[in-house]
Amino acid sequence: MIRSMNKFEKAQTVLNEIDAEGWLIVCVEDSDINSRFMIGVTSHARHYIYIGADGKHKVIAVEMEAPMIARSLKDKGVNADVVSYNSMLELTTLLIPLVNKPRIALNFGNEILSPEGTAFADQIRVGDFFSMKTLAPQTEFISAAPIIERLRSVKSSEELKDLRNVCKATLELLEKFPDWVKVGMTEKEVKAKLEYEYMKVGRPSFPAIVATGAHSADPHHNTSSKKIEPGVLLVDTGLQIDEMCSDITWTFWVRDKPVQEFITAYDALFESKEIAHNFFTDGTPNNLPAKKCRKYLADKGYDHEKLFFHGYGHSLGFEAHDIGGRINWNMPDNIKLKENMVYTSEPGLYWTDKWGIRLEDDVIIGKDKCEKVTYNSKDPMII
Amino acid sequence: MIRSMNKFEKAQTVLNEIDAEGWLIVCVEDSDINSRFMIGVTSHARHYIYIGADGKHKVIAVEMEAPMIARSLKDKGVNADVVSYNSMLELTTLLIPLVNKPRIALNFGNEILSPEGTAFADQIRVGDFFSMKTLAPQTEFISAAPIIERLRSVKSSEELKDLRNVCKATLELLEKFPDWVKVGMTEKEVKAKLEYEYMKVGRPSFPAIVATGAHSADPHHNTSSKKIEPGVLLVDTGLQIDEMCSDITWTFWVRDKPVQEFITAYDALFESKEIAHNFFTDGTPNNLPAKKCRKYLADKGYDHEKLFFHGYGHSLGFEAHDIGGRINWNMPDNIKLKENMVYTSEPGLYWTDKWGIRLEDDVIIGKDKCEKVTYNSKDPMII
Repeated sequence: MIRSMNKFEKAQTVLNEIDAEGWLIVCVEDSDINSRFMIGVTSHARHYIYIGADGKHKVIAVEMEAPMIARSLKDKGVNADVVSYNSMLELTTLLIPLVNKPRIALNFGNEILSPEGTAFADQIRVGDFFSMKTLAPQTEFISAAPIIERLRSVKSSEELKDLRNVCKATLELLEKFPDWVKVGMTEKEVKAKLEYEYMKVGRPSFPAIVATGAHSADPHHNTSSKKIEPGVLLVDTGLQIDEMCSDITWTFWVRDKPVQEFITAYDALFESKEIAHNFFTDGTPNNLPAKKCRKYLADKGYDHEKLFFHGYGHSLGFEAHDIGGRINWNMPDNIKLKENMVYTSEPGLYWTDKWGIRLEDDVIIGKDKCEKVTYNSKDPMII
Repeated sequence: MIRSMNKFEKAQTVLNEIDAEGWLIVCVEDSDINSRFMIGVTSHARHYIYIGADGKHKVIAVEMEAPMIARSLKDKGVNADVVSYNSMLELTTLLIPLVNKPRIALNFGNEILSPEGTAFADQIRVGDFFSMKTLAPQTEFISAAPIIERLRSVKSSEELKDLRNVCKATLELLEKFPDWVKVGMTEKEVKAKLEYEYMKVGRPSFPAIVATGAHSADPHHNTSSKKIEPGVLLVDTGLQIDEMCSDITWTFWVRDKPVQEFITAYDALFESKEIAHNFFTDGTPNNLPAKKCRKYLADKGYDHEKLFFHGYGHSLGFEAHDIGGRINWNMPDNIKLKENMVYTSEPGLYWTDKWGIRLEDDVIIGKDKCEKVTYNSKDPMII
């Protein structure tokens, strides 16, 4: 059996295509996503990961982290030279030969304020960028966007398997939600208990949003010390196990029978989402699922421009907001979905100071039809 | 009673001193520390915070977050205009008048690879920096380092009060540790339970390091699924309540009587820390406490260069690694401690593949003597 390429080997392939000698990931203090993705372990100090087109990879880390990084790379079958530095002088001495080459890729983006831009690659900070220019004035530094895109945009079959598993694990925990959530618990207590369960098997892929009553009208509500009250309870949460992340929103009704207005809006959102899923297919412009959803909501009498004031979905995978164009009705036509990309599908309707509903699923883009890897209840769940 | 200045007013004072019209905080996706610090709420989308020297402050955020940010600023008594954007075109239209002024401060650092540099201010990404240059080609962009330093380096009496409180709350939870930690629990389970307690009152200030046996020899060990075994158990953890963070390491012995080698090393580290604290005073070079600690360890026969391969301490407060020079024996003499700065004090001794010990306290720098706001047990605690 031929083993599949590891991430370093995949990056090498792209480096050779774009005619660059190496890709340097510069990380300050904590690991950024691309660092964790490549070395498989979180560093808490300044470190540099160099992927050579010639297969001569190097990691420069502080002395107290170098052994841990070396072990992680060995476990992944990556052959890399891990060296440590004790002072800024030692660090620059190690960096100079590494970056003094004709073309080196760095994690910066171009055309940041354009939807066609490569903001997803923009990780390196200004001071660090100019320090590289100082250490290697002759080097042509190019954006690593093509490498990052190739590595993280379309998911492999192993990655999709991990995605299905993490989604399943999240749903199992969410199913138990009505058994233990009670009126009078604070939003924070609910978040804490849910994430405690996550931490036993992985970690939260982002801090959970637990929003009671009027808080549910803020899509990015910061979970607070307010007590859960009867009425709407919105929970937007995700789990990460190893690499893959889930991101799910369920909107519950707490105590008694939901008001008719809630049921009607819930039903409309649920149906609008199902309609959108028909367009989660290879080659479809990213704007189309969102347009179809909004058309349905408008037909049902909802002023969607006023009540649904966020995008329809975002790329998901190695982080809760992974790289790739959003699904949104105002995206340009030339940005298109591809098979085995993963997206959230999350229409919402919000009435400020009253309540909001959002139903969010995770979906794998398919050739002719998509695969939903999470679900929302067809009828509102009562707690 | 005269009310104390809020953060926007403090920043205005510095802006006027450095003759800049405004300070623009540029944030992509999630809030960075300076964004959270200023607006008091976490954003999950691209946003811009403009602090005007003339008191005309502005926040540009996505529509779904603008109301939440406006409420948070109002609660803090900050008068700022919060506006929303729906497209990149709307965003650039809003940004152009904001940054087309003679001098604007941005969060970038200079001389990143020098201990005297301002890496602490380096937050803005390369693509974002150049997009600002494109929108305002005539503007002189300067580093916001002097503003950030003034706002976050030396802590106010209210901030120190909050620090004492968060340290007290952390210690109370750590004291209970021996009641529930058992051989056979995984490191992850121990972390999850501890952080569950944190989340009820705040949040972890960083992911806890729980390291059993040989894992304790990696100072930045990534908490794993390994089961707690008899012997050394190192826990490095911190809590954040509102703004202030704690950061504490306790090293336990699990089951039976510790081996003599452990007791001897623990005692030496404890004493070396107490000696260093005599030099946690205003005007002392940052290197001095570390030198005194290492001298003591050397006198006790420990090869400190080999066994204690990390810095002595770091600034603490608004984040677990706050801004300010490290305490380390190789720091230049001209970097000095100041009254009401807060530092960790964390000597360690590590034997690779065997075990390590680290004892970490949090300390407020005083005029003539420091104030320890946490403690470690004088004798090893047994679980």
